[in-house]
Amino acid sequence: MTARNSTAAYEALKDRFARLSALGGAQAVLHWDRATMMPEGGAEARAEQQAVLSLIAHETLTAPETGDLLEGAAEAADALAEWDRANLREMARIHAHATATPADLVMQLSRAKSRTEMIWRKARAANDYASLAPALAELIALIREQAAAKAEALGLDPYDALLDGYDPGRRATDIDRLFAELEGFLPGLLQEVMEHQAKGRPAIAPEGPFSVALQEKIGREVMGFMGFDFAHGRLDVSHHPFTGGVPDDSRITTRYDESDFTESLMAVVHETGHSLYERGLPQDWRGQPVGRSRGMTIHESQSLLFEMQAGRTEAFIAFLAPRLKAAFGGEGPAWETANILRHYRRVRPSLIRVQADEVTYPLHVMLRYRLERAMIAGELDAAELPAAWNEGMEKLLGIVPPDDAQGCMQDIHWPSGSFGYFPTYTLGALAAAQLFAAAKAAVPELEAALGEGDFMPLTRFMREKVHGQGSRLTPDEIIEGATGAPLGTVAFRRHIEARYLGK
Amino acid sequence: MTARNSTAAYEALKDRFARLSALGGAQAVLHWDRATMMPEGGAEARAEQQAVLSLIAHETLTAPETGDLLEGAAEAADALAEWDRANLREMARIHAHATATPADLVMQLSRAKSRTEMIWRKARAANDYASLAPALAELIALIREQAAAKAEALGLDPYDALLDGYDPGRRATDIDRLFAELEGFLPGLLQEVMEHQAKGRPAIAPEGPFSVALQEKIGREVMGFMGFDFAHGRLDVSHHPFTGGVPDDSRITTRYDESDFTESLMAVVHETGHSLYERGLPQDWRGQPVGRSRGMTIHESQSLLFEMQAGRTEAFIAFLAPRLKAAFGGEGPAWETANILRHYRRVRPSLIRVQADEVTYPLHVMLRYRLERAMIAGELDAAELPAAWNEGMEKLLGIVPPDDAQGCMQDIHWPSGSFGYFPTYTLGALAAAQLFAAAKAAVPELEAALGEGDFMPLTRFMREKVHGQGSRLTPDEIIEGATGAPLGTVAFRRHIEARYLGK
Repeated sequence: MTARNSTAAYEALKDRFARLSALGGAQAVLHWDRATMMPEGGAEARAEQQAVLSLIAHETLTAPETGDLLEGAAEAADALAEWDRANLREMARIHAHATATPADLVMQLSRAKSRTEMIWRKARAANDYASLAPALAELIALIREQAAAKAEALGLDPYDALLDGYDPGRRATDIDRLFAELEGFLPGLLQEVMEHQAKGRPAIAPEGPFSVALQEKIGREVMGFMGFDFAHGRLDVSHHPFTGGVPDDSRITTRYDESDFTESLMAVVHETGHSLYERGLPQDWRGQPVGRSRGMTIHESQSLLFEMQAGRTEAFIAFLAPRLKAAFGGEGPAWETANILRHYRRVRPSLIRVQADEVTYPLHVMLRYRLERAMIAGELDAAELPAAWNEGMEKLLGIVPPDDAQGCMQDIHWPSGSFGYFPTYTLGALAAAQLFAAAKAAVPELEAALGEGDFMPLTRFMREKVHGQGSRLTPDEIIEGATGAPLGTVAFRRHIEARYLGK
Repeated sequence: MTARNSTAAYEALKDRFARLSALGGAQAVLHWDRATMMPEGGAEARAEQQAVLSLIAHETLTAPETGDLLEGAAEAADALAEWDRANLREMARIHAHATATPADLVMQLSRAKSRTEMIWRKARAANDYASLAPALAELIALIREQAAAKAEALGLDPYDALLDGYDPGRRATDIDRLFAELEGFLPGLLQEVMEHQAKGRPAIAPEGPFSVALQEKIGREVMGFMGFDFAHGRLDVSHHPFTGGVPDDSRITTRYDESDFTESLMAVVHETGHSLYERGLPQDWRGQPVGRSRGMTIHESQSLLFEMQAGRTEAFIAFLAPRLKAAFGGEGPAWETANILRHYRRVRPSLIRVQADEVTYPLHVMLRYRLERAMIAGELDAAELPAAWNEGMEKLLGIVPPDDAQGCMQDIHWPSGSFGYFPTYTLGALAAAQLFAAAKAAVPELEAALGEGDFMPLTRFMREKVHGQGSRLTPDEIIEGATGAPLGTVAFRRHIEARYLGK
């Protein structure tokens, strides 16, 4: 192929991926609408719309011409500018993942995921693991087939091949090393923190009711402090909080509990972190693979940076607490800044991952990581999961779920076919601690600004070092570029010791 | 082709059109979201998403295989059951329309429409027709090209070819005949009605303000009376009321004026009429061409049936007025049933089509019909439009717009490239009068039920005779099947005479 033809091939790929991006954007709207707006009677038609768009996207991506164009463009890769080279590399990566799974397995997986997720909803509500086990076993068998196919095509171990789909370049060996470090100090640290907190004053929960309208108003105000641009996004309600839409039309959601505003509010802060990342992706590369967010570890680092790091600093809580008190008309000691801070920093082993504090959260993730690796390796059957779960909880957190609904059935991930996703929560938490420490070191006025409700110094740092990088680098390169060190556990450990033990 | 192959071809076509239907449904969600939910900063990404879905749908429809399959299936058409035969006929019709316009003209038209519509928004706001004229002239030239191409492909006159896209089977000769009849009696009748109303008590407008929340609540109640199922639809706000979504997830919109609730409420009634039609389309044929609504004349007949016919009967207004009074806490003569009825039945020539009463409305449409036919025939230039408009208004309605914003720039249709659409408003009004008369004759308890806020007897009749027919018949066959007579002006004339002159 001539140089001119190679350039033409790359340009044709850009058109093709722009079309895929627009299809993805349309899918994002359908998904958001389904979760926030759609009447229940629309479910069947919507499922059909979503299936057809997925199928068209898959056909476009795996069409023989896409492969031909990639081969053609590869010959001229050296002549491309850096971002274009990275863009071409990402195109190839996405293509390799999509073509690795045979078409009929894609269909089987799609059906098994929908079916198992549906069964899971009922089984969890009825606390009936036995009714879930057969479907889950079938799904795991298909996922193992997929992992093997991807392993073969990508030259990776099966579990790594799944992991790579969520966190590009991530390998289980990285996780093993980091999780071993965490396991080395976290249980002891947790013990210390618990003892330390037991000596202090207990946190008092502010007493409601808190109207949804007022909670929403305050949520929007906090989003405003964080720099959320309502000309490019919305806040709505869904069963589970999420960030959807596209970078320039970012749809975040939360849910409201009239007896407790604090969880909903921090969910808003968390999702706003995700949203700011999307908005900050390189404007010049909208619609191209290199302009996309760089996997789930980086994504989660950005949400936790705002929710757990900046959002729970003394500086920001001191800014926030009096505003909450005034807005809700609160009175008494529960509304004092020191108590709000204690409330947002309570640490205690608990059963449910999504409600866990930042000290115990990694233990929940480690459990899931071990179990899913064993399942993918064929060393743990679906039928054995509840026992293994409970044993792990006992060992890692010292508590045993009273039932499977609060145990191995609590998360949607496995029933919906997501294996290799869980570790990114904790990798994201490690990255968030490391990034926040680096930002504070690089931007001396950062904490003082948070004390005035101003997140811009933090956001500016992230825009330059993380958001604006798109998918030009690997996740680890982004972290190392922003912090000067590879992803590790040191910053996280220091953060926990400083925040919870005053060290 | 063997019979078995022909059957396979038809089955393959059904799959292909089901995919097109799902794409259309996705487009409907994107369009609804854009008009109701999307922050302005999302416009660029959304335009791209919509363009890509349109392109994919066009490619799917006009792909050579679609034509091959249609040829193959045609050979076995006689062996198909009636609905399948009609389905195949509709597939061929849709395909013929789509392939009639060359691909490059489709692109040119798409760009010219977007551009002219954008210019029109500014030109109307600035009352500056001169700034619109060049773009409109260019667009008209392209539409004429398209009309010629379609005329050639479909074997029709150019204007008929455009008309056929909105109202299948409709020809200008039908319209000429019906409009000539209308012109024969309507101006005189209008004069009589005006004189008759001048002798009676004037209508008093209820005085606001009327909160949006309360207006919305009442709108929903009225939708409920009409049988709107909120498990299969929503009511939201947009700049212009419309009905979107898909049959089982029907999204209607209205807009609110805090100084006048009456217009918004009747817009809700109008859109609910459209929505009930969509919902009532044959359930077994969801996603297939024969399951679609049968063009704009039938669609408008259903909205006007509820808004103008049933919604303004003495029976229903007598049911509604006391509820409005109670809900808004209204007092005084403005809230009496007789006054609400007078208010909703005021007749007077006015400048703006969308605000016109049912007696003068056809005159607005006739004007547009004449002018657009002349434009498509090349007998009227964009530059000459304002003068021709004002002359026509003077002649038909006896008033002349003070400016072009209230004259030839008031409607979005031409700037957005819709030529051949306007007549369906009045054909729909004629059909509505004829259908309502037939329904009353066939269902004696219909008016008494309306007096109790019960639209079901009317809706049941329409479901059987109109909604449930999908696109099995031509629009005129549907009307004749439901009313026993071809579409005419007699029922409309009787309706006007009865309602406004008590004849």
